[in-house]
Amino acid sequence: MDISTLSEKINHTLSTLRYGEHPVELYEPIRYIMALSGKRIRPLLVLLAAKMYHDDVDKALLPAAAVEVFHNFTLMHDDIMDKAPLRRGEQTVHEKWNANTAILSGDVMVVRAYQLLLGVEQDKLAQVLELFSETAAQVCEGQQLDMNFEQREQVSIQEYIRMITLKTAVLLGFSLELGAILQNAPLSDAEHLKAFGDNVGIAFQLRDDLLDVYGDKAKFGKQVGGDILSDKKTYLMLTALEQANEQQRQTIISWRDKTDDSIAEEKVEAITAVYNQLNIRHQTEQQIDRYFQKALHHLDAIQLPEERKSTIRGLALQLMERDS
Amino acid sequence: MDISTLSEKINHTLSTLRYGEHPVELYEPIRYIMALSGKRIRPLLVLLAAKMYHDDVDKALLPAAAVEVFHNFTLMHDDIMDKAPLRRGEQTVHEKWNANTAILSGDVMVVRAYQLLLGVEQDKLAQVLELFSETAAQVCEGQQLDMNFEQREQVSIQEYIRMITLKTAVLLGFSLELGAILQNAPLSDAEHLKAFGDNVGIAFQLRDDLLDVYGDKAKFGKQVGGDILSDKKTYLMLTALEQANEQQRQTIISWRDKTDDSIAEEKVEAITAVYNQLNIRHQTEQQIDRYFQKALHHLDAIQLPEERKSTIRGLALQLMERDS
Repeated sequence: MDISTLSEKINHTLSTLRYGEHPVELYEPIRYIMALSGKRIRPLLVLLAAKMYHDDVDKALLPAAAVEVFHNFTLMHDDIMDKAPLRRGEQTVHEKWNANTAILSGDVMVVRAYQLLLGVEQDKLAQVLELFSETAAQVCEGQQLDMNFEQREQVSIQEYIRMITLKTAVLLGFSLELGAILQNAPLSDAEHLKAFGDNVGIAFQLRDDLLDVYGDKAKFGKQVGGDILSDKKTYLMLTALEQANEQQRQTIISWRDKTDDSIAEEKVEAITAVYNQLNIRHQTEQQIDRYFQKALHHLDAIQLPEERKSTIRGLALQLMERDS
Repeated sequence: MDISTLSEKINHTLSTLRYGEHPVELYEPIRYIMALSGKRIRPLLVLLAAKMYHDDVDKALLPAAAVEVFHNFTLMHDDIMDKAPLRRGEQTVHEKWNANTAILSGDVMVVRAYQLLLGVEQDKLAQVLELFSETAAQVCEGQQLDMNFEQREQVSIQEYIRMITLKTAVLLGFSLELGAILQNAPLSDAEHLKAFGDNVGIAFQLRDDLLDVYGDKAKFGKQVGGDILSDKKTYLMLTALEQANEQQRQTIISWRDKTDDSIAEEKVEAITAVYNQLNIRHQTEQQIDRYFQKALHHLDAIQLPEERKSTIRGLALQLMERDS
């Protein structure tokens, strides 16, 4: 069974979910956001981890759906907080309806996510729900830190890594851990998969930061330099600020809050020039590699034949767009 | 052990809860709203139901706290949606901090509420969490209906009862059901307690509507006629609209959207006069009594000696401010 077969299973499961009917104002936004088909990477990780331990992964389908529903809840609420107009090219829920609807529909999604986990075998239920809850709270902590950082003058690299770990990485780690636990994997394997996922998640977010500046525009599908234009405190920006001399620092600061379209190209060029002077691209690539290698060490530590690990290894490489 | 001893246990338990520390912006609002001491009626219902079946209620303490944390989550999010400036005489969370903080802190509270339920015995956990989740979703449905009704011209009495059932009553019913389940009460008893709580909850909300107009100002502690001034579609207003002749209907409609302080007294008097003409007070009292009697029938149906039921019966009478 390859990844596309598992993806089909996920899409089929998601298409069968019933969130509720009345009042329609509460449930329609849930169906809407769940239909904006994302990559479904988290449920895929649940199934891939489950498949390492048993070929039959059907018992992991509803738990996998739970993670996807929870993830989409965070998108719905984050979009309100970030005042984002678009999500996956479509109107966000608070734009299409209103903020109150997005708050309340999101609240119900958390509840539905928990309900999707209630079919887990009785002797594992408390453990799974505790890990899920801890992860869920961490994702909220990460979102709060992200909002805090926007208001702050200085953010250290360490704080930034902590933020992306909580906001993005831990849910990827939990997805793998969940799949393993559901199939009675040894505790140490579940922990290694969790650590693998966390570290891949950090590497993936750093890569996202990198591609915003150095990505192939056509391939990446976003405007190059979007983070620069919006003054986002990315790994690249924070590293540059930490290493800049006085002149470079002044250059960066002088461009802050200038978000007008007419100077966009000039701004991106100016900041990128500072990045180039400081060799930020190479440093970021090195950092990404460090987290990716750390992830792979955890995968290596799992006592299973390589053929059981190769699909997950391959997916991680693919996420990193690397050959090996 | 009387009610005040149980209340002390609840307050002690709530005071020991740890929601989290970092980032402080996420967790401080939770401590703030949980410290605005409400009546703690829901956790008290959990313990009172538990006590009907076993004198030792300690295993119900954390589940009782879970219900209180969930209830306060709904207050935090409802206050954003209703743009309420005050809660229990203090600034609401979105006023003291901001809406984003109130959204995100509320989200974590849902997660913490679930976590507080995870200590429930393994063989009851899935059942308890399913009932809790269903109740939680219903509370959200009730809030959505309440918001819908504000935008609508017409709301039937039946729809209104459905709304307050979901928004207010089902969590009271669940609280009692939870206490019973935790002590291995017979299923039919748990169901009767649930129905008792639901019906007391409806009666209590109708009484709240009634007291807004006909309450003793000093005793009630709120401005008399607040619902009238804000054009709230209460049981009284909807009943009046249903039964009004053309002239009475015109009187009601002519006062709509007039919320200025200078005409407040005149507005309350005019609408109250219509209520008096239509005998709305007596009709509402009858309806309250109908739900209260229905509640008592469910309490009567429970196969326990009366002394085991007398505290809950007494509390319900007290909530209704009745002697018998």
